[in-house]
Amino acid sequence: MDDRLYPLPGAAPVPPEVLARLKAAVGPRGVAEDPAEIAPHLVAWRDGWRGEVPLVLRPESTAEVAAIVRICAEARVPIVPQSGNTGLTGGGQPHMGGSEIVLSLARMNRIREVDPLNDSMTVEAGVILQTVQEEAARHDRLFPLSLAAEGTCRIGGNLSTNAGGVQVLRYGNARALVLGLEVVTAQGEIWDGLRSLRKDNAGYDMKQVFLGAEGTLGIITAATLKLFPRPRDSAVALVAVPSAEAGIELLALMKAAMGETVTAFELMHEICFTLAAQTMGHEDPMPGSEWRVLLQVDGPGPQGKMAEALEAALGEALERGIATDAVLPASLDQAQKLWRIREDQAEVQQRAGAGIKHDISVPVSRIPEFVAKADAALAAVYPGFRPCTFGHAGDGNLHYNPIRPEDWTDAAWKAETQAINRIVHDLVAEMNGSITAEHGVGRLRMHEMARLKDPVEMSLMRRLKAAMDPAGILNPGKLLA
Amino acid sequence: MDDRLYPLPGAAPVPPEVLARLKAAVGPRGVAEDPAEIAPHLVAWRDGWRGEVPLVLRPESTAEVAAIVRICAEARVPIVPQSGNTGLTGGGQPHMGGSEIVLSLARMNRIREVDPLNDSMTVEAGVILQTVQEEAARHDRLFPLSLAAEGTCRIGGNLSTNAGGVQVLRYGNARALVLGLEVVTAQGEIWDGLRSLRKDNAGYDMKQVFLGAEGTLGIITAATLKLFPRPRDSAVALVAVPSAEAGIELLALMKAAMGETVTAFELMHEICFTLAAQTMGHEDPMPGSEWRVLLQVDGPGPQGKMAEALEAALGEALERGIATDAVLPASLDQAQKLWRIREDQAEVQQRAGAGIKHDISVPVSRIPEFVAKADAALAAVYPGFRPCTFGHAGDGNLHYNPIRPEDWTDAAWKAETQAINRIVHDLVAEMNGSITAEHGVGRLRMHEMARLKDPVEMSLMRRLKAAMDPAGILNPGKLLA
Repeated sequence: MDDRLYPLPGAAPVPPEVLARLKAAVGPRGVAEDPAEIAPHLVAWRDGWRGEVPLVLRPESTAEVAAIVRICAEARVPIVPQSGNTGLTGGGQPHMGGSEIVLSLARMNRIREVDPLNDSMTVEAGVILQTVQEEAARHDRLFPLSLAAEGTCRIGGNLSTNAGGVQVLRYGNARALVLGLEVVTAQGEIWDGLRSLRKDNAGYDMKQVFLGAEGTLGIITAATLKLFPRPRDSAVALVAVPSAEAGIELLALMKAAMGETVTAFELMHEICFTLAAQTMGHEDPMPGSEWRVLLQVDGPGPQGKMAEALEAALGEALERGIATDAVLPASLDQAQKLWRIREDQAEVQQRAGAGIKHDISVPVSRIPEFVAKADAALAAVYPGFRPCTFGHAGDGNLHYNPIRPEDWTDAAWKAETQAINRIVHDLVAEMNGSITAEHGVGRLRMHEMARLKDPVEMSLMRRLKAAMDPAGILNPGKLLA
Repeated sequence: MDDRLYPLPGAAPVPPEVLARLKAAVGPRGVAEDPAEIAPHLVAWRDGWRGEVPLVLRPESTAEVAAIVRICAEARVPIVPQSGNTGLTGGGQPHMGGSEIVLSLARMNRIREVDPLNDSMTVEAGVILQTVQEEAARHDRLFPLSLAAEGTCRIGGNLSTNAGGVQVLRYGNARALVLGLEVVTAQGEIWDGLRSLRKDNAGYDMKQVFLGAEGTLGIITAATLKLFPRPRDSAVALVAVPSAEAGIELLALMKAAMGETVTAFELMHEICFTLAAQTMGHEDPMPGSEWRVLLQVDGPGPQGKMAEALEAALGEALERGIATDAVLPASLDQAQKLWRIREDQAEVQQRAGAGIKHDISVPVSRIPEFVAKADAALAAVYPGFRPCTFGHAGDGNLHYNPIRPEDWTDAAWKAETQAINRIVHDLVAEMNGSITAEHGVGRLRMHEMARLKDPVEMSLMRRLKAAMDPAGILNPGKLLA
């Protein structure tokens, strides 16, 4: 049996009279019932999460969202909030059985306000991330959240999952980019917390409760986001380091020498480059070194300053022996080529054979220890596996994706998923790390989180859920079992 | 009657058998009963908040804190957590009537761990802020939280009040500086959330609930803090701007030109300088301009680079007419003199005659509008009042402190406190601002917050309080009535 296809325990189909009330609340344009129209809302783009619903509601205003929630609260019908449906943990898809409705925020896609002198922008939950970025750029500002799905994912989902991405080192996770929220509570009230303040200690900071809660505590309908000055000068380098330890020392050196201008710092194992060459023809610019760092610095300009400062810092690193070689691309095109090796890793690893994906974090200082211990633990059981390790080392976040030994079948390797997860996650827990650094819990990591987390923390989380959503109608069976 | 001296509604003295159990839980070194020893814990250093307790408990470990809370939870005895006792809102002092106990965290003052390569440090709640800063410096790192009380206040209180200070523009409030917390819950459980991760989406981010909650949801006993690279190069400027509007445009220009290196950006009205000259003999370096900005930029070095970049940016500001004059101090000594005019404002204003203090915030872009409207509204009722306005304009946070007209008595002006608060706070509410940007709610702003806040938000806050502290034993009568 596919363990991703199951109903909610004790679930019954949504009663027809409730469906009728829901349809009346949003009008014909706000309802999708046609199976073909519903289909894309029922399935995840990856990993096989799939469910069933009698209808998808597509409200176009906060008032309509609130009306839906009030009806569902009264009838105890569970709601699955959905924005871009690009998540990786089964948190945004319904269960099987047709007992839930999907509430899509996609039609709530207005940019309500841009205030460049306050460096803020208020947008509805359904605005596509890339649209937010572009609107910021039109006002000569930067909205720094950036991730692979940015052309499809929507800001409501980014905030509900506290999305990460490639610039967290400098700008923080999605949570750090929010000044205010508008939320529909599980009771169907509208909370207008769209304040655009940098400082506000008037009571509990309620927005923190809803950010990263994966739609289980309230439905984010709009947000006031922080904007930043737009950097005008960039420099990129690929650096060979003699060890993972040296890579972490290089990070400290770069931060000391260049402050907040260090935007990205990605540690990559040689195997990632070898496989990128084999599977996609990407040239390896410095064959022979086991560990490399791809880093980027961005500054206000004038142009060329960053490259100059970066060269000086790397010069020091070479002198101190924490770097052994460095490539500074001479053109934007060459810089993009380097980045493509990093960005194509998902595709590269797919082509190289089945990998078991992990999205873990540990303290930055303990990355080398984690890598050594995880590699050793896996090699003991699975000799010949390929540790295609890479990730946002500046954040302590590794996508630790062991790939099958060359002579194994994909199916045989996939069958080891749970055993391999357990080895990796137990090590992470031992090191006080996180088993889901940026992708969230959803259904994928729900039981594993409950197994590994401190019972006191689990009970605090349950208390919070019971306080905000006592009837359990918001995205049940996700995050908390 | 002094409206700061009152008992908790329905309060009874702590029963002797409970006191005996509490004393046994911490041993003789953990108890203060002598009135002289207790006295400093009962009174605020400013503004007359005062209370009574039968004893002050001074646990030296998290286990002892938990034991105290369990006894109090069972007996329903309210606890007033206290660390440095430097708050400004009556949040840290007990009520009259002897129905509560004070739990001082001062003896929990160990630095548990410093991890420079992870840029993190774990400290107990009773460590003095300045000690945290010094320990960070010893490891060549910066802990950027900095405020007037730093030699006395303790980190537990800083985190429980989400303290602000002079470097928020660059580094954020206290909340933004925390990676992990250890908390004793209202049930007397110990939650070890001392993770030192940059990214962790494994479930609700429970630490956010306790940060800034003023000890009403749990007792913070230790924290893992973020450290930063230590800037090695600084430059300061005092800039005359033709208007408050131009001041805000200057901020945008500085951020665009200098990125995150802009550490402080303080807008000050001329009156602040005039009074500083009259009352404390501080020389006014640019008499005649109504509005000035005191700003500081800090970078990684080498030395001199910041001054050079600052001069270039200010040159552009002068050219564009958003600055009319600028003083760049030639020495550290001169820079400190400029800062002293800012730092001495509390004292200066005290000497100039009674002021009614406000700690408000509005969107940065709306500061000029706020100042104009507030000045006009007050002048209509109180002609001749002196708008000694200054504050962290980079954060939208003003200490808007109207000083009595020269011919009024201090007493007559103080008698207008409530009326003036109301004019200022109503305007703030109308502009979607905060009536307590950095000092918190405590008892001082409790009723005013309830009057002005959205009822939905108030009910969310009450739900959170009921979930975390259902018996209401943690700092009752603070923040929420």
